[in-house]
Formats: sequence, structure tokens, C-alpha cells
Amino acid sequence: MYETNPKKLQEAYYATAYQLGGHGKRNVQVLKQAFEEMDGQLDSDQYGAGELIENFQDKIAAFLGKESAVFFPSGTMAQQIALRIWCDQRGLKKVAYHPLSHLEIHEEDGLKELHGIQPILLANRDRLIRLDDVQNMPEEVACLLLELPQREIGGQLPAFSELEEISAYCRQRGIKLHLDGARLFEILPFYQKTAAEICQLFDSVYVSFYKGIGGIAGAILAGEKAFTETSKVWKRRHGGDLISLYPYFLSANYYFDLRRDKFAQYYAEARELANYYQQCPGVTTRPAVPVSNMFHVHIRLPKATLEPVLLSVYEQTGIGFTHYLREVDETNCYFEVSIGDNYARIPKEAIKTAFELLAEKLGEVVS
Amino acid sequence: MYETNPKKLQEAYYATAYQLGGHGKRNVQVLKQAFEEMDGQLDSDQYGAGELIENFQDKIAAFLGKESAVFFPSGTMAQQIALRIWCDQRGLKKVAYHPLSHLEIHEEDGLKELHGIQPILLANRDRLIRLDDVQNMPEEVACLLLELPQREIGGQLPAFSELEEISAYCRQRGIKLHLDGARLFEILPFYQKTAAEICQLFDSVYVSFYKGIGGIAGAILAGEKAFTETSKVWKRRHGGDLISLYPYFLSANYYFDLRRDKFAQYYAEARELANYYQQCPGVTTRPAVPVSNMFHVHIRLPKATLEPVLLSVYEQTGIGFTHYLREVDETNCYFEVSIGDNYARIPKEAIKTAFELLAEKLGEVVS
Repeated sequence: MYETNPKKLQEAYYATAYQLGGHGKRNVQVLKQAFEEMDGQLDSDQYGAGELIENFQDKIAAFLGKESAVFFPSGTMAQQIALRIWCDQRGLKKVAYHPLSHLEIHEEDGLKELHGIQPILLANRDRLIRLDDVQNMPEEVACLLLELPQREIGGQLPAFSELEEISAYCRQRGIKLHLDGARLFEILPFYQKTAAEICQLFDSVYVSFYKGIGGIAGAILAGEKAFTETSKVWKRRHGGDLISLYPYFLSANYYFDLRRDKFAQYYAEARELANYYQQCPGVTTRPAVPVSNMFHVHIRLPKATLEPVLLSVYEQTGIGFTHYLREVDETNCYFEVSIGDNYARIPKEAIKTAFELLAEKLGEVVS
Repeated sequence: MYETNPKKLQEAYYATAYQLGGHGKRNVQVLKQAFEEMDGQLDSDQYGAGELIENFQDKIAAFLGKESAVFFPSGTMAQQIALRIWCDQRGLKKVAYHPLSHLEIHEEDGLKELHGIQPILLANRDRLIRLDDVQNMPEEVACLLLELPQREIGGQLPAFSELEEISAYCRQRGIKLHLDGARLFEILPFYQKTAAEICQLFDSVYVSFYKGIGGIAGAILAGEKAFTETSKVWKRRHGGDLISLYPYFLSANYYFDLRRDKFAQYYAEARELANYYQQCPGVTTRPAVPVSNMFHVHIRLPKATLEPVLLSVYEQTGIGFTHYLREVDETNCYFEVSIGDNYARIPKEAIKTAFELLAEKLGEVVS
């Protein structure tokens, strides 16, 4: 039997001439490009102060339509802190979020271990949080966190009207609403709204600069001035108030300017690419029609059957589909696709040919 | 009466041809220099994994004589985590440190607020922790933190034999000993020991890469493998397990290699410079004879009297002494000096002349 080998698939993927997803490799060149034309005489920020960091924070605050913004080394730090502030303000250490929230599955329970905050999980692992989940919360909470799009279920979104209803309900009940906007830039084309129009539904907002924007790392937390000022105290407590954060926020600023207007393109390309996948035997995408630059590709095959198929298509076509496969169960696997600059660099004909070959080869093994 | 103006002193300092302390301005050039010759095709680390970060961690672990090391974005984060691990292991949320420890005065009480750890303050604000302070601790603690050198009192050090005694006492009593080695590289010439010889007295060690090393930011936490593995879990909880830390550890590595052998020179220069200061009326240094590259300069004058003296000496000589003054009380102020690459770049004669002028002008105002 075929032995799967994650390293082999990854190497084969990066050996292809073209990869369907992403902006390109996360390598040192990402930093070098951002700083190539930068004036070396610009002064470093110093523990969150200085013209460069303040300018960037002001710029993103304005983009988000918020009074104030603070740059953080990570979203993990920014979001725990946001929830802590809202819990302290309410005097209640309970928040609500989705069972597949980043805080629940990727942060080693930092929220519980460092802040003693108990999460109430709304909805379930297969679907979005709906208005009635919020209306029927089993317990009182200080804050509700919504992740737009809900990444772990393929990047799904509620209708904007439902967001408005959830926001209105929370305001009426004194529940703070926090936006996990790790991929906020990515959903603007679907909603046909500005970031500010979406963010005005929320009391606090986190955005990331290394997903669609393609920076190195870092995040912004935005809200009213009193909120962001308190967040700076917690940032220091967490050990995130570094003497110099400029390697991150200056590159974030560089790639924000480079890509802020490209998300409609990524969104259109994601729909095109999802459509290619759907024409292959045994393949579905989640969501069926993407609502951002991302979606999940589910394939009705064991990993050990699918992996050699992909390897041979990569080799024959020079097109890389994914660098990894995750098993759902013994007969299903999936992977995530996020469209970036790479997709537009590939000749249309090459994509078409690669999918024809993939469809043919899958047809031979899918029952 | 003269109105003091911190901005004016700072601007005048940086306008001088030569500054006595530091490596030069903390500006974007520090990053650009470190990455100038770097291969752009090197892969980023990914959430603490990857060849580049592992190589750097292994290199510093070996330098410190420890089994394992983990790179952190900040010392604040690394040290809270070290203390938390030792507290959890002992089942006792109490640690001991100096009243002027970084954890006590610069971290917004992160240790208490995030970890619920209570510090027992040993010694007092005017002197080092001594063996008998440790032997007579009022309460049982899980861990004792020693900062070498004790920065806030001018960078003082105990004799190595006293360190050995404290270490032996702690081991006998089951108290973990943690080294705040923010300036560990800086004290090796005084002790005439290797880093490993000092670190073997401690169970865990933190070192910084932006003090004497002059990197951008970042820290290493080192100890036994089980300890550092647990520290990675807490690093994620704190929001410090960034997708990419290479802007910090690659520059840390660059400046470590550049300056690791220069600390004996900085130490000799600090003694020379302290001697110059001591020859000025109303001026003392703390310690009287530096034991590292740093010391504090205390001047028996009100800030409003001293500041114009400094401004005129900067202007007449082109030598900058300090960019700030801190008031001790109405008739005394002080500032910190840390010797770096700058000092050796200054013509010896220019230093001598500047101090002659400073001494003359101080003589006119010191009673």
C-alpha cells in the first residue's frame, strides 16, 4: 500500500512552476522587498510610541472607521486582551464564540489559563452562529466574538442583514460584540461594504496583516480610545509591548498598500477556481460558492489514494494544488485554498489543462 | 528660571557628532544592515519551527551551556513564563526577586494579573540581594530570580562566590533559581567566566538581544528540554508564538556574531568613562567602578541647572553625554550609560576636551 508522506507532497508542491494559492513562499524576501526602498534613517518605534507606529495605527483606525487602533505582534494576543477588557468592564468572565474559533482550537487555552475567562460555545462545528443562537444563549456573557469569515468551515459568512440583527440584539442587551476580522479585507467584495460599514456593527475589531495582505506577522486591534488605551496596558503585561515592532508594522503597511485593492480580484478568482474543482469526480468545495478568497476542497478519497494522484498531476502539469492533505476520516480528506497573487500569474490554459488531468485521474479512482 | 525640556536635550544629543553611549541610533538601518547580505530564499520559520530558528536556538543553548533554548519576542514574556512553570511544578504561586526587578516595575504587574503569582521582594531598592536575604526569606517560594547585573542600581554584581552559595542554598531547599540575564553577555569580562559557567548555577536563564548585542528585539529562554517545551505552550498562550519571528532572531544572530567578542572592550571603556565623570565636580558614578558596560551617573544639581550646562557642552564640543535626565529629588539627578560601539569611534582627545569643559562648567554651578 502507498505510504503517505507530508514532506513529499510539500516538496513536490513547491517544486512546481505555479501554485494555485497564496502570494508565494513565506521567505526572507518578503521582508527584504518591504524594506528595500525604505529610508534607513527612519527612527524605530519605542515601546509602542513614535511617529511611524502612530501613523500606521491612525491609518488603519480610519480604514476601519474606529476612533483608535493599536498594533499587536499577534492576533492571539490582541483578541484575548479585547475579551478581557470587555469581561472586566462587565464584571463577568464569560464570552461566547464558535466552537471552531481560533481561541478555542489554536491558542492552547490562553484565554482560560491566563485570563480565567470561560467561553460559551454557540452553534456547532458544522455551521455559522445564527441570530437565534445569540438570542437563546444558555448563559449571560460579557462579549460575543464573531469570526468573519468562519475560517474552519471553509470561510462562510452570514448575510449582512443577519449581522445587523445580531449587532442590534447585542447592543440592546449590553453584550459587547467583537469582530475576529483575521480575514476582514477578504470579505469586503462579497458584502459590497466598506470595512467601516462592517466594523460599525462591532465594539472592537481585530484584523491580521499576514493572511490576504501577505505581511510577515502582526495585527491591529481597534475600537474607542478608552478601549485601545487599556489594551496597551495588557499588551505590556502579555510581553507584546516590544521595544521595536517596526519589522512587522512597516511591512504590514507596505503590503496593505500593495494589496488593499486586489481583494475583489482574489474573490473572483476563488469562485473560478472552486468551479474547476467542482467539475472533478468526488470533489466538492465548502462553501459551494466562495464568499471570499478562500474555500475548502473536500475529496471523497483516502489520503493514501489521493496523494499519488496529486503528485503525478503536479509533475505532469507543473501546477501545484495544495502542499498538504488533512484527513476527515478514512475515506475523505480536505485542504484549504486561499487565493493570493499567485493565481493571476498562471496562464489560463495551464490551469484548464491541469484540472482536465486531475479530473481524469480522479475519475479512475473515485468510486 | 530655566524651563527643562526633555525633547530639547534629546534633539541636542542626537545632533552631536559623537555620542558617548550606545551603538548608534535605533533606526530602520539596524534591520537593513542585518538583512543586506541575507539570502532572500531562506524559508521563514513557522510558529517556532524551521531550520533557521532551531539553529539559532541550538547555538545559544550551547553558548549558555543549557540543554535547550526557545526564542521569544520579549523578555517580559519569557520571564513570566519561566516563573509560571516553576510555580506550577512546585504547586506554589510565590517567587522572590529584587524590588527593582523588571517584573516589578516595568511590566504593569503582568506576573500578578496574568499568572496570579505573588512576588516576595528581597533586599531593598538600594542594594543587591545577598545570601542572607535568601536564607532569611519570610515565606517559602517556588523560584528565586536574580538579575545580573542589577540594572536599576547602576548595574551591580555580587561576587561569583556569593552566587555559588546562593545557588547551592536554593538547590538544597528545592528553590528554582532563574537568571534575568538581560545583560549577561555584558558581565562575562568582569567575572572572567564563560556564560555556561555562570548559567550552570541557574535552572533557567533569559538573555536579551537588544541591549549590549544591539539587535532589534527578542530574547532566549534556556534550560532543560522539559522546561523549554512547556515554555512553548505558554508562549502560544501569551500570543508570542508568531507565524514568523525571523526579523528578530536573524538580526539577533547577526549582531550576536558581530559583537559577542566586544564586551571586554565595552567593559574597559565603561571604567575609563566612569573615571572621567568622577573627576567632574558634584558627579559620582554607581557603581564607583563599573562591573559591566553600564553604570549610572549621579549629579548633585537640580535638573533645571544641569540641563543648560549639558546643552552648552554638547554644542561647544560636539560630544553628547546623555539624551535624558531623571530627577532623584529637587537637587539631584542621574542618567544611565551603556557603552556600545559608539565610544571607540570618538577621538580620545575629543572626549578629554569635552570632560574638561564639563568639569569647568559644573564647577561654576555646583556648590
